Amino acid sequence: MDQLGIIAQDILEEVRNATRDTLGVSRESFGDGENKALDILQSWARKLELGSYRDPLQNLWIHLKSDPLTDASIVIGSHADSVPQGGNYDGLAGIVAGILALLQLRESGQILATPVRVLALRGEESAWYGKAYMGSLALFGKLPVSELENRHRTEPKTLRQAMQACGSDVSLIEQGKAVIRPDEIAAYLELHIEQGPVMVAREWPVAAVTGIRGNIRHNRVLCLGETGHSGAVPRWLRKDSVLAMAELLSRLDEHWRVLLQMGMDLVMTVGICSTRPESHAVSVIPGEVSFSFEVRSQDAQTLKQFYQLMHDECERIEAARGVRFEFDRKIETAPARSDDEWLQRLCQAGSLVLGAPMETIPSGAGHDAAVFANEGVASAMVFIRNANGSHNPYEEMDLQDFLLGTRVLTQAILQSST
Amino acid sequence: MDQLGIIAQDILEEVRNATRDTLGVSRESFGDGENKALDILQSWARKLELGSYRDPLQNLWIHLKSDPLTDASIVIGSHADSVPQGGNYDGLAGIVAGILALLQLRESGQILATPVRVLALRGEESAWYGKAYMGSLALFGKLPVSELENRHRTEPKTLRQAMQACGSDVSLIEQGKAVIRPDEIAAYLELHIEQGPVMVAREWPVAAVTGIRGNIRHNRVLCLGETGHSGAVPRWLRKDSVLAMAELLSRLDEHWRVLLQMGMDLVMTVGICSTRPESHAVSVIPGEVSFSFEVRSQDAQTLKQFYQLMHDECERIEAARGVRFEFDRKIETAPARSDDEWLQRLCQAGSLVLGAPMETIPSGAGHDAAVFANEGVASAMVFIRNANGSHNPYEEMDLQDFLLGTRVLTQAILQSST
Repeated sequence: MDQLGIIAQDILEEVRNATRDTLGVSRESFGDGENKALDILQSWARKLELGSYRDPLQNLWIHLKSDPLTDASIVIGSHADSVPQGGNYDGLAGIVAGILALLQLRESGQILATPVRVLALRGEESAWYGKAYMGSLALFGKLPVSELENRHRTEPKTLRQAMQACGSDVSLIEQGKAVIRPDEIAAYLELHIEQGPVMVAREWPVAAVTGIRGNIRHNRVLCLGETGHSGAVPRWLRKDSVLAMAELLSRLDEHWRVLLQMGMDLVMTVGICSTRPESHAVSVIPGEVSFSFEVRSQDAQTLKQFYQLMHDECERIEAARGVRFEFDRKIETAPARSDDEWLQRLCQAGSLVLGAPMETIPSGAGHDAAVFANEGVASAMVFIRNANGSHNPYEEMDLQDFLLGTRVLTQAILQSST
Repeated sequence: MDQLGIIAQDILEEVRNATRDTLGVSRESFGDGENKALDILQSWARKLELGSYRDPLQNLWIHLKSDPLTDASIVIGSHADSVPQGGNYDGLAGIVAGILALLQLRESGQILATPVRVLALRGEESAWYGKAYMGSLALFGKLPVSELENRHRTEPKTLRQAMQACGSDVSLIEQGKAVIRPDEIAAYLELHIEQGPVMVAREWPVAAVTGIRGNIRHNRVLCLGETGHSGAVPRWLRKDSVLAMAELLSRLDEHWRVLLQMGMDLVMTVGICSTRPESHAVSVIPGEVSFSFEVRSQDAQTLKQFYQLMHDECERIEAARGVRFEFDRKIETAPARSDDEWLQRLCQAGSLVLGAPMETIPSGAGHDAAVFANEGVASAMVFIRNANGSHNPYEEMDLQDFLLGTRVLTQAILQSST
């Protein structure tokens, strides 16, 4: 392994050891593990003779000492927190990649037209306070002030209290004041492990991300029919809620299959379904079933149309089966598209580094990059192959894949400056 | 209302008042309410100058005093118990119909070739000791001795203790000894309220029952797939248990529709379904869902074939979707067919009494008549129109419908003797 590989491994392992939990790591947003990770990263910056500072929200910034810190910069960012008992690479890998990129750029001796800074963000995971992207939203003055009262998942403290304990200036959030303006960021680049199994299945070590899927959700849809004796009520007098739900899901599943064949980007998930435990029985026609509904796409139009299709199917089934569908609050998150120029740069750099065409992939999971993109910052991402998914202790990123991804990042930045 | 109508109403109301519960009636199998009902019925038999006796299991028999009690008899039977907070007519109506039939037969002055006896059975409802048809099974020495240890639904007592408290000779059950042989019963006839909504919907006051549906059940089928991030795993790498279940149920629902069109008798119910409450989430591909499965038919072959069809569909879906179906114990209850001759007699009698063709209907719910039929006794049933289903306090049988049904029974018996 080369020197950069040893440095990367040392940083990753030092943070892992400091934030180790029973099985994996726990780096609480605006909490102990996140603080430790940021402190270790900052001490490594010093050891590697890089400049560093904290912004008023106590996010960590790392830069070359030659950087005048006045111009708009290319930001390589990711988050320092993790889910409870999560894996070591989700978030942290992107920050370490940024540090390595700084070292490579320094070593190249090339003077860049736009300086590069690394941003180690706080509070990306929704697991701790029920809200994602807290750090990046607050950076742009876009974290709703009401979120400050969110309670910790298990402890009595609020997000406000946790932020204050970290030294974050909560008054900025209360006033909706930005720490940085979008025009102060020339581009936002993020390296992240893939959180799905596609790259392992396809044998792609590194890929460029085309965009981050948005989603539309209902946490709870009710299908209401009519209970009855399972033996004594014939088909034509039944209003069976479970069979109505089954028909809806089967039809949507078939639409999904066809839309993929038509080239659209789409995933649909019904993660929760249940008849009423208080009254259901093997020999009773189910009068009620509840289920969750989520659809994700990179394309806002596809999302909207599939959502409408779902409602159309519900109406048809209501008419045919005498049932009624009731929906709770519709929750929407807009998709974010990668910047075309940066996507192209990453692909070119990738081909050069890999000696093979760089593959592209949408991100199904959300990332801080979506916040930057939706603020109008040219944003793009590099995914690293990762076995066993994420948000669990079994993440498995290969350091060689990671080093390839880092070189792709650096190469793209160098190309942008020529 | 004629005199018989007044007698019927008086008996029904006296039993209702004696066994009234908060909302409906409660006549516990081998318990207080059932004892009271039988005592009232027996006192009415005396008042109406009918003969009566208890068998060693403490079922009540009522007969004309002219009956020599030596020959094989036509038995008009039903059960005296009810579910907790049930309705007044489920079971009781059939016994009262028998008493009225005896009065009508006595009045007709006709000497029957085969005597008629009324049987008020104990312990038909499974709600109290988890086992149905306890009274009729014990009558034929067919109640498994292990059932005697069944616990009451809420109290610490066992079925054995409850039977002994009623004076039932439990040693007969322990020895598998019959109280009566099938060849001592020329026919078994039962009048019962319909437990479904068909007759109300069709406006049939009375109908002849073609048979009692059998069923095949699994209380719990597991569909096992693989959990994953709802955004990060594309369709081709998913093993979604809920969509697999939905496809299975939709396909079976469609097969059911077609088989009905082909003239088969079938109902299918999935009364329970649920993802794992411990681990399911809106944004997690469901790796596990459980559901119940029940299919009922009058035809044993249809049951068997539909059950096999279900397994075939499971195999196909397993192969296509990478999921696995796991089944708990298969529970089977054989269908019972009405005796052709008696069914025909009831239809002829019905046409005469109603002045219109008598309609026929299968019984989806189970009845003691199924036990008699499966013991080889020629059995048949008359259903009375009833709003609001059964096993609830809102049963609503019209006394006029009931009297029509009783006359159909009597007429059929008179015809059998000519």
